[in-house]
Amino acid sequence: MPFISNRGNKMPESPIRKLVPYAEAAKKKGRKVFHLNIGQPDIETPEVALKAIKNIDFNVVEYSHSAGNESYRKGLSEYYNKLDLNITHNDIIITTGGSEALLFAFNTCLNEGDEVIIPEPFYANYNGFATTSGVNVIPVTSSIETGFGLPEISEFEKLITPKTKAILICNPGNPTGYLYSKEELEILKNIVLKHNLFLIADEVYREFCYDGKKHYSIFNLEGIEENAIVIDSISKRYSMCGARIGAFVCKNKQVVATAMKYAQARLSPPTFGQIAGEAALKTPTSYFENVVKEYIQRRNIIVEGLNAIEGVKCPTPGGAFYAVAELPVDDADKFCQWLLEEFEYNNQTVMLAPAAGFYATKGLGTKEVRVAYVLNQEALKEALVCLKKALEVYQGSTIQKKAEMKL
Amino acid sequence: MPFISNRGNKMPESPIRKLVPYAEAAKKKGRKVFHLNIGQPDIETPEVALKAIKNIDFNVVEYSHSAGNESYRKGLSEYYNKLDLNITHNDIIITTGGSEALLFAFNTCLNEGDEVIIPEPFYANYNGFATTSGVNVIPVTSSIETGFGLPEISEFEKLITPKTKAILICNPGNPTGYLYSKEELEILKNIVLKHNLFLIADEVYREFCYDGKKHYSIFNLEGIEENAIVIDSISKRYSMCGARIGAFVCKNKQVVATAMKYAQARLSPPTFGQIAGEAALKTPTSYFENVVKEYIQRRNIIVEGLNAIEGVKCPTPGGAFYAVAELPVDDADKFCQWLLEEFEYNNQTVMLAPAAGFYATKGLGTKEVRVAYVLNQEALKEALVCLKKALEVYQGSTIQKKAEMKL
Repeated sequence: MPFISNRGNKMPESPIRKLVPYAEAAKKKGRKVFHLNIGQPDIETPEVALKAIKNIDFNVVEYSHSAGNESYRKGLSEYYNKLDLNITHNDIIITTGGSEALLFAFNTCLNEGDEVIIPEPFYANYNGFATTSGVNVIPVTSSIETGFGLPEISEFEKLITPKTKAILICNPGNPTGYLYSKEELEILKNIVLKHNLFLIADEVYREFCYDGKKHYSIFNLEGIEENAIVIDSISKRYSMCGARIGAFVCKNKQVVATAMKYAQARLSPPTFGQIAGEAALKTPTSYFENVVKEYIQRRNIIVEGLNAIEGVKCPTPGGAFYAVAELPVDDADKFCQWLLEEFEYNNQTVMLAPAAGFYATKGLGTKEVRVAYVLNQEALKEALVCLKKALEVYQGSTIQKKAEMKL
Repeated sequence: MPFISNRGNKMPESPIRKLVPYAEAAKKKGRKVFHLNIGQPDIETPEVALKAIKNIDFNVVEYSHSAGNESYRKGLSEYYNKLDLNITHNDIIITTGGSEALLFAFNTCLNEGDEVIIPEPFYANYNGFATTSGVNVIPVTSSIETGFGLPEISEFEKLITPKTKAILICNPGNPTGYLYSKEELEILKNIVLKHNLFLIADEVYREFCYDGKKHYSIFNLEGIEENAIVIDSISKRYSMCGARIGAFVCKNKQVVATAMKYAQARLSPPTFGQIAGEAALKTPTSYFENVVKEYIQRRNIIVEGLNAIEGVKCPTPGGAFYAVAELPVDDADKFCQWLLEEFEYNNQTVMLAPAAGFYATKGLGTKEVRVAYVLNQEALKEALVCLKKALEVYQGSTIQKKAEMKL
C-alpha cells in the first residue's frame, strides 16, 4: 500500500468536529444535545437572499469569472464603502468561503517554512490552513485575565524573525469574541510597517459588535494599504454558512494579481452562493439591529450564567457570538467528551468546543472551552442548567476535589 | 512593501483564462466571439436539478457535514454502483469542484517536492494545483500522431524515481478527448502496483464516450483498491460548472481519513450545489442519450471541419468535448491572441485555447490548440469558416510562408 504524505499525517483534526461522533451516539440514545460547540447560527438567512435563489431563471449553471461576478464585486465594494473602507471591485476576489481567502493569503504572502504570528487562542482551522500551506504558526498568547486583549507589543517583537512574513488577527475574535480597539490596531500597524509584514485580518464578524462599540477594520488604518489583507465571508453576516462565499480584499495590486492565479486554477467560486450573496446586500438594516439585539441578550445570559457557576470564569466578549470560559475541570477535552458519552440531565446534555485546540502553545487552554451562543435564549438557559449539573457530578471537577480534600 | 511569496510568483497563469481581456476588448468593439476556448458547455442543466434549487424550503443556509450531506453521498454511491464501481458513501468526500478533490489528493498522497507523472498534454490547471501543493509534475509525452494514446510503459518507467508518488490521468481526457482502453488501464495498474504508487484518475467526463465505446474507471480494475483515487465532478456531467460540486472517491480508509482532515478545515462543500447535485442524480437517461448524440455530431463537425483546412491536423477524440488540433502557424499563442486583437470576418472571430499551456515540456504544443465543442452545430460551422479565413490571412501561417517561398 502506498504511503500517506507526512504533511497529511501532520494535518490536525478539527478540534471542533472531532467530538461529532460522540454527539451522534448521544442522539442515537435519544438524548437532546445543546450545540454550543459550532459557529452555525440559528438566525434566519435574510429573505431577500433565499428569494433570489428561488427565483433563478437561467438554464445553465455556468462558471462565473474567477474573481467572482463583477456585479457582485461592485455591490460588495459599495457595502465596504458605506463602512468607509475605500474599496473598488478590483480589490476584491470572491472566494469559496473565508477559508479559501485565507489559503490564498498564505500562499500569496508566505513561503513554505515562513512564519505567521497569531494571537492565541485563535480559530482552530487556522492551524489546518497553515499546515496545508506549510506555514508555521507562531502564537503570541493573550490571556483570559485581560479578557483576551491584544498582547503587549514587546511580546510580538520578541517573536519576529527573518522568517516572519505576516500577522493574522480575527476581529472581533473567534473564539474569544474580543473586539480590538482602534489603538490596538494602530499598534499592529506600527509593527507591520516597522518589520515590513503583511497584516491579515479576518473580519467576518464585523457586524456583531456590542455595547455601542464600533468595529474598526484594518482598512480604516492609514498608510498600510500595501500590507493589509482582509478575509471576509457572508457565512456569519447573513447566516449563510453553507453558501460558501467569502472574499479576499486587498489594495496591493501585486498581491491581488498573485491571488488571482490561485483563483483562476479553481476556475470560479460557487454560482448559487454568489447570487444569494449579491441579493443579501439588500438586507434591511433592521435585520442587523434585530440580530445584534438578540446576540447581546444571549451573550448576557451566557456570560452571567457561566460566571454564576462555582469555579467558572468568563470574560465579557465585545463582539462575534463566542465566549471562552475557564471551567473547574481537570481537562476540558475529557470533560466535553464525558458530557456527550456519559452525562445527561433530564435526558439532555451540552456540546462545547474544548479550547486547547484554539491554542498553538501546548498545555494552554486545557481548562477552557469555547461557547457559541447560537441557540435561542430558552435553549441557552436550559444548556446552562445542564452544564451546572454536569460540573456538580463530574469526577474530574477541581471544585469537587477541593471539597473532598476538606473531608 | 512586503514581498510576494516565491511560490506565488511561480504560480502559473491559466493559459485558458489569460486571453480573456483580449476577448473582452474584442466584444467591446462589437465583435462576436465564438468561445471554443473553455469547457463551459451550452447544454442545459437538467430541469430536476434547477427545480430542486427553486424549491428550497429552509430558512437557514447551514453548513453541511464536512464530507458532504450523507443523503447525497448515499445517492452518489448508488450512481457509482450502477457503473459497477462498488463504492459506499464512506468512500466519498463531496468537494468544492473536482479542483478541490485534486488538491486533497495531492496533499494527502504527496509531500512537497514529490513527483506525479502525468501524460501530457494535460488539463492546464493541474500545474496550478501542483504548484499550490509544491508537487513536481513529471510529464510523459503522448503524441498527436497516435491520437494522444497512452505512452509506452517504458516511457513511464524511465521517469520513476524515489520521489515518484503518483500517476495522474484524465479519462476521457481534457484537452485531448482521448478515451483509455481497458488494456491501457491494466498497464497503468501494473506500473502503480510494481512501484507502490497512487493512481489518481480524473473521470469527470465519464458520461461522454462516443462510437459505442465504454468508459472504464480505475475502480473497474481489480487489486488496486488501496492505490486508486477518483476525482469526480458534476460540472460537466450535468452542465453545472458553477455549482462547484465534485467528489474525492477512494476505498483506502487511511487516505479518506487524511483527506477528511483537509475537508474539515474548510468546514463544508457548498450547500446549494449539493442540493442541485443530489437532485441531478434523478436525471433521466434520455438526457444523456441526447447530450451524447449532440456531442458526437459536434465532434464530427469539428474534426472533419478542421482536417479539411489546409495544414490542420486533428485526431478524432473518443470522449469528452475537446479536441487538440495542430495548426499551420508559427506560434499558437500568438495566433490565438491575434484572432482576438486583430482578426475579424463578418465582424466575428474565434477564441481558442493555445495548447502549449497543456504541456509541461517546454517547446511542445506550440502549434497546437484545444478546441472545446461547447457551442451549437451552426455556431461551430460558422466558427470553422472564421478560423479557415483567419489561417488564410494570418502573417505567421506556415502554409502562407511556403506559398511565399514558392514565389
